[in-house]
Amino acid sequence: MKYYAIIVAGGSGQRMKSSIPKQFIELNGKPILMHTLEKFYCAKSSINLIVVLPKSHQSTWNTLCLKHQFTISHQVCEGGTSRFQSVKNGLALCKEESIIAVHDGVRPLITPDFILNIYKEAESKKAVIPVRPVVESIRKVKGDCSEALDRSMYYSVQTPQCFTSGLLHRAYQQEEQNTFTDDASVVEFLGEKVHLFEGEADNIKITTPKDLLLAEEILKV
Amino acid sequence: MKYYAIIVAGGSGQRMKSSIPKQFIELNGKPILMHTLEKFYCAKSSINLIVVLPKSHQSTWNTLCLKHQFTISHQVCEGGTSRFQSVKNGLALCKEESIIAVHDGVRPLITPDFILNIYKEAESKKAVIPVRPVVESIRKVKGDCSEALDRSMYYSVQTPQCFTSGLLHRAYQQEEQNTFTDDASVVEFLGEKVHLFEGEADNIKITTPKDLLLAEEILKV
Repeated sequence: MKYYAIIVAGGSGQRMKSSIPKQFIELNGKPILMHTLEKFYCAKSSINLIVVLPKSHQSTWNTLCLKHQFTISHQVCEGGTSRFQSVKNGLALCKEESIIAVHDGVRPLITPDFILNIYKEAESKKAVIPVRPVVESIRKVKGDCSEALDRSMYYSVQTPQCFTSGLLHRAYQQEEQNTFTDDASVVEFLGEKVHLFEGEADNIKITTPKDLLLAEEILKV
Repeated sequence: MKYYAIIVAGGSGQRMKSSIPKQFIELNGKPILMHTLEKFYCAKSSINLIVVLPKSHQSTWNTLCLKHQFTISHQVCEGGTSRFQSVKNGLALCKEESIIAVHDGVRPLITPDFILNIYKEAESKKAVIPVRPVVESIRKVKGDCSEALDRSMYYSVQTPQCFTSGLLHRAYQQEEQNTFTDDASVVEFLGEKVHLFEGEADNIKITTPKDLLLAEEILKV
């Protein structure tokens, strides 16, 4: 089965208090996004890698690839005005019947083993997403009130989220809804079932300077 | 107004893969629990500190206090078989009309400023808890199914949770329910309203080796 990976790297550096978009910030001497792409390449070198980047960041990315002699083959496509539109743009390049993983560019700590496992799971289950138990107590807010929840029933959702190409193309032909928080929610809006898969604890999304420090520590171990 | 703090330190070192209970593990050369107590002492030296510790850990704690020349005055009381019972034991030592904070012993990164602010807030609002927005997408699981949620309506809950003494005593006279996840849920079971207060991003609960590394990094900044 053919595998694609759409790596969404549309973020700015706002929460990072950085002028550099967060996916380009260096982690152990190399832009975060390169770590992420390497993980997919190491999982299986034949995975078709598609990086979705805002147009304004593409020349910076080209310069970084030269500087770091980054030679892993990938296509670059233009980001949209929302995550939904960005994924949709990447999806337009996935022309063959396949399993498609959609992954956050700023989750570089995912492991190649995990990537292979979730692709394989999606071959039989069609729609599979990595989740982790919620660690802290959670609470739902409604207007002026709030209520404690039974956290054992809640999971936090990660990427890569993997789907059969037919299903994902169908999902992204729908009109964008503001209830779409991730690809799973887009697929579910079709009425299709999404399967949960135990995610990796270290697969954090790097969005703050603190996350970056943590990622550096994890890479040292 | 008199202030008490009940510091709950009942955990074992299981998730830490350590034989030392996690509250005794050293962070920058000093047991985590000492950092936590120092934060309350620095907020206001007159706060009555009550440490709830399993009986089997108390001699270790005494030895650590001698070793580290830890002289901040505090009472130690025995932990119960659940968090609810532990807090209830600590509460028995809060005899005066007061504001009582209940705090996790393994949240040493809370700041003295924050502690003072939330005590003050509780003087007028009676029941105040620190919360943070949920960062990742969340999903609710029910049996074999799951659904995406609008994460903007969900908050993760931290400590210190602060209450007027009258309210907290009344709450802990109730029979323990397995829906009690924190002190706020115990107070709400009375039908009382709990107010949300913006928590500090760095106020993490140290439960894994990764959290410990992160805490060390945060303390360096």
